Amino acid sequence: MNFEERTIEETSIYKGNITEYVVKTVELPDGRRVTREIVLHDDASAVIAFVDGKLLCVEQFRKPLERTSIEIPAGLIDKGETPLEAAQRELEEETAYQAKNWSEVTSFYNTPGFCNEKLTIFEASELVAVDNPLAQDEDENLRVMTLTFEEAWELMESGRICDSKTVFALFYWKMKQLEKKGDV
Amino acid sequence: MNFEERTIEETSIYKGNITEYVVKTVELPDGRRVTREIVLHDDASAVIAFVDGKLLCVEQFRKPLERTSIEIPAGLIDKGETPLEAAQRELEEETAYQAKNWSEVTSFYNTPGFCNEKLTIFEASELVAVDNPLAQDEDENLRVMTLTFEEAWELMESGRICDSKTVFALFYWKMKQLEKKGDV
Repeated sequence: MNFEERTIEETSIYKGNITEYVVKTVELPDGRRVTREIVLHDDASAVIAFVDGKLLCVEQFRKPLERTSIEIPAGLIDKGETPLEAAQRELEEETAYQAKNWSEVTSFYNTPGFCNEKLTIFEASELVAVDNPLAQDEDENLRVMTLTFEEAWELMESGRICDSKTVFALFYWKMKQLEKKGDV
Repeated sequence: MNFEERTIEETSIYKGNITEYVVKTVELPDGRRVTREIVLHDDASAVIAFVDGKLLCVEQFRKPLERTSIEIPAGLIDKGETPLEAAQRELEEETAYQAKNWSEVTSFYNTPGFCNEKLTIFEASELVAVDNPLAQDEDENLRVMTLTFEEAWELMESGRICDSKTVFALFYWKMKQLEKKGDV
């Protein structure tokens, strides 16, 4: 079965700082033509990190939601960086911590229906507070916090934790606890 | 700590079929002004459904990735629909199944950094094949499949399952298996 949607025409509508909005006319396998709206977005990295058994999170204002959201540390991958290097940089910039152990948990496209952004999630352990950490991004205001599993789960149920990567992190944390229990 | 980013000016750059691209000038708490690029997008629903113990998935072409992706059934919530009604409709349209039991698993914003789309994920069980199902969307070409846990996990590792909601579904499935094991 042929699924391909061949590009007939594409127009870059707007090129912003973090996104480019493109409209493409595509030909479906049966010959019909339809329009696809596509947001081009750099890839990103996120970090599931624990300090004394608590999940490291940052609270920040999210303009699309018009409110703050509590999330695991994350950010865009800079040119020339690997996903791991971006995760390490973002952890330090956003929380003033470095970590000794890193492993990749998973990666996914957040919204493949209209956007090409891929997110890679790492787990970091053996954290060390940094005396002179990398500076935060100029346009970010962050509040760092650490949460017990129960605190984090409650914040998810009340909607203050509400983004895909952090909800994923909490279910992942629950899964790890069940795995541990099974090992005993 | 005040995090609010007050809107000073906003411009709708483009209004498409499924997205609207808006650029906002905001004032940060310290008085500086920066730009936020925002994609307005309707909310969506997705379904984790099992047929004879296998996960029900659909393969479709995703233009932003320029390839097909294998995902759990999902789609936009129509005007006047609840998230549950949309999930039920999408399951039938995309797979020709209805389900007797429905429960909400979680909901999250896919990318709160630039988009307001909220996704609600349901779990459906006791599936029944429908003789005359609702028609698929006109511009969708789908291939329905059912996957064992091992098959699905392998497809994730090879990158053919690669979107947030389906990766979430697989980790959720693994967690449920661990819970079950713990109960025995």
